Amino acid sequence: MKRRGVLFVLSSPSGAGKSTIARKLLAEDSDLKMSVSATTRAMRPGEVDGRDYHFVDLERFRAMVSNHEFLEWAHVFDHRYGTPRQQVEDILASGRDVLFDIDWQGAQQLFQIAGGDVVRVFILPPSMEELHRRLVARATDSEAVIDARMNRAAAEVSHWDGYDYVLVNDDVEHCYDCVRTILKAERLKRSRQTGLIGFIRSMLKN
Amino acid sequence: MKRRGVLFVLSSPSGAGKSTIARKLLAEDSDLKMSVSATTRAMRPGEVDGRDYHFVDLERFRAMVSNHEFLEWAHVFDHRYGTPRQQVEDILASGRDVLFDIDWQGAQQLFQIAGGDVVRVFILPPSMEELHRRLVARATDSEAVIDARMNRAAAEVSHWDGYDYVLVNDDVEHCYDCVRTILKAERLKRSRQTGLIGFIRSMLKN
Repeated sequence: MKRRGVLFVLSSPSGAGKSTIARKLLAEDSDLKMSVSATTRAMRPGEVDGRDYHFVDLERFRAMVSNHEFLEWAHVFDHRYGTPRQQVEDILASGRDVLFDIDWQGAQQLFQIAGGDVVRVFILPPSMEELHRRLVARATDSEAVIDARMNRAAAEVSHWDGYDYVLVNDDVEHCYDCVRTILKAERLKRSRQTGLIGFIRSMLKN
Repeated sequence: MKRRGVLFVLSSPSGAGKSTIARKLLAEDSDLKMSVSATTRAMRPGEVDGRDYHFVDLERFRAMVSNHEFLEWAHVFDHRYGTPRQQVEDILASGRDVLFDIDWQGAQQLFQIAGGDVVRVFILPPSMEELHRRLVARATDSEAVIDARMNRAAAEVSHWDGYDYVLVNDDVEHCYDCVRTILKAERLKRSRQTGLIGFIRSMLKN
């Protein structure tokens, strides 16, 4: 059955396990493709340009903004992040769904642009203490950066009610199963089954 | 996490496979309970009062209507069918979800009563020809009854756009999986997670 692609937003505070779940989802579901954001922040060790982000300088980012090349964009800390429009349109045109790794501001902007036809999933850590432990265990950030992330996490969590689904990641396998179930169900929504009208018309014709 | 129960409507033309799916769902999911309708039609061989229907006479049905004991009720062919309110309230109070085997009219009434907080799933046969074959193969109905069912089926199918999800039952196992996935995802909706507010409040308190 022909259907309209799902715009699938996965948000969470840094350290709540979103990246692990997104990676697994993309690996196991060939109908889902990642929307790779553009950013002005520096590339980190292990990151790949075009896979993790499109790394651009401030001048290029500003040009993209003025050329309306972004579906949504925002300032986070000292950097800019944006969702290139063309990429999303290409994924949808190929009959696939788009995964967005964006925050509540991005989700809100996307929701408005898409006329509400967005699925927004928020992943919570089991507790703020556990989130702090995970950030410390990662050992990639200084204490000051961890403090900033914790403040930002609390701000993110306070926007939980801007999401359609809220999951607590106290078991990553279970949380992954829930995300997968949500995506599968959303694909089955009547409003996305654009092939149904024709199917039912021919069914009732005879 | 405490949550509000799902009002889960499964509709389909007679013969599209809904009963098989509903039975399997109830057997495998102890959090789902059936709303047993009351009806004025006669009991058929193999049916059990209180399990398949609450069989009542016309006088009793009318009394239930005047006492506002039905969430919704309707005339179908020469008989009356209604959903007793108390039973639904009891299932919800026990923290479970309610499965409704009702038609599009019932689904519409329930949708209005519940302020839109209903999940409506419609199961289509693969084709009207296949539906006819299945009704003939059942060998429980006369030709005249089968004709009436086919007319009613076409009328039912024409209301497909009053449902949140529409599934084609060309493979009963796959169709069952889809129904199960929808129910699981709907349980995860933020709007039904009534325990979330408290969880997040205590999370952000410290």
